[in-house]
Amino acid sequence: MNEDPLEFVDPETTQDEILIATYRALSKYGYAELTISKIGDEFDKSPSLIYHHYEDKEALIFDCLEFMLEHFEASLVETTIEDPNEALINFLEVGMCLGPDEPDQLIRTLTQLRARASHNDFYEHFSRSDRVFQDHLEMIISEGIEEGKFQDCDPEQVATMLFTTLTGILYRRTTSDIEGGIAPLRTELTHYLESRLGINSEVEIDSNKGFYTK
Amino acid sequence: MNEDPLEFVDPETTQDEILIATYRALSKYGYAELTISKIGDEFDKSPSLIYHHYEDKEALIFDCLEFMLEHFEASLVETTIEDPNEALINFLEVGMCLGPDEPDQLIRTLTQLRARASHNDFYEHFSRSDRVFQDHLEMIISEGIEEGKFQDCDPEQVATMLFTTLTGILYRRTTSDIEGGIAPLRTELTHYLESRLGINSEVEIDSNKGFYTK
Repeated sequence: MNEDPLEFVDPETTQDEILIATYRALSKYGYAELTISKIGDEFDKSPSLIYHHYEDKEALIFDCLEFMLEHFEASLVETTIEDPNEALINFLEVGMCLGPDEPDQLIRTLTQLRARASHNDFYEHFSRSDRVFQDHLEMIISEGIEEGKFQDCDPEQVATMLFTTLTGILYRRTTSDIEGGIAPLRTELTHYLESRLGINSEVEIDSNKGFYTK
Repeated sequence: MNEDPLEFVDPETTQDEILIATYRALSKYGYAELTISKIGDEFDKSPSLIYHHYEDKEALIFDCLEFMLEHFEASLVETTIEDPNEALINFLEVGMCLGPDEPDQLIRTLTQLRARASHNDFYEHFSRSDRVFQDHLEMIISEGIEEGKFQDCDPEQVATMLFTTLTGILYRRTTSDIEGGIAPLRTELTHYLESRLGINSEVEIDSNKGFYTK
């Protein structure tokens, strides 16, 4: 998620502008280092407006995540899957930071908030967010089967497995040193995709193309 | 991890007794609710001894996790893998809470501490802990290949994939509501084990037998 997913968003209200500024500040500094003053630096209007809209950092971050998820969901409506194979690999690589780049501060923040999700509002957010991503994966797989490009399988089941493994990769990458790095995981994911969908997943990825891009 | 992994541990020092009491209190109440007084309830001696040994809750929990990991590592030295197939499934089921039981408070605590691991001492702990669990999985797989029970593969690579997927399952179970529950994940893991190791993993599991058990 190294591209800016909100690059093409046209903010409709001051609140939208605040949330976009929050996203940018979060990506730079992460949760612990985030301050209203740093958000103010990313914001074209007076920082005092932020205090007018939000009581604390947590409420601001919560709305920021919801805003991003809604934007992602809306962008899916406009998405046409031209090549399911490419769409799948693109999702795995770009969407879940499977590439060589280190997960950024935003991803670290998501890990931290998620870990606290068992006892607050974020539980609902992450349950819904998981469903959105997983449903998108399921749609790509169904499309691939329909077009005869993937072998038959249970798309929901395979999407659940893929999404869970990717979540595990991201979680481990942000919280520990994975012995042997990410290479063995890519190889095993390739094996799984071959055995389950009958595809060769060693597709060229345009790393400038994220699933947020129009 | 619903059995008590420290049941057979013979505490050698007062500090060992404190750490065992910490483990029991953590399993009951989780991180946020843990207090020295609750640890005192699990401890046979005067609770004031806890303050004598530890400055704060975080240092106590850190040593508790290290103590459990050392105990697990020591128990592996005594372990003989009689049936690699059974050992593998046992590891997946019991060790990683793949069973129907909800992850307990200890698992939730591990998730919370892990999420903060990118910026404190726990990063080293979880990196080492991952290596211990993953190496054990690798040993089981190597043993299975050597005995001709598993088809040939790269044991380290497969262990990395399995451990990462299990970590993802545990992480999602403690932080969100997995649509469709755990059943699709079990089916896909079974498929992966069949295609990678050539085994039928639908083995009967004795849920009273954990890998901590002597």
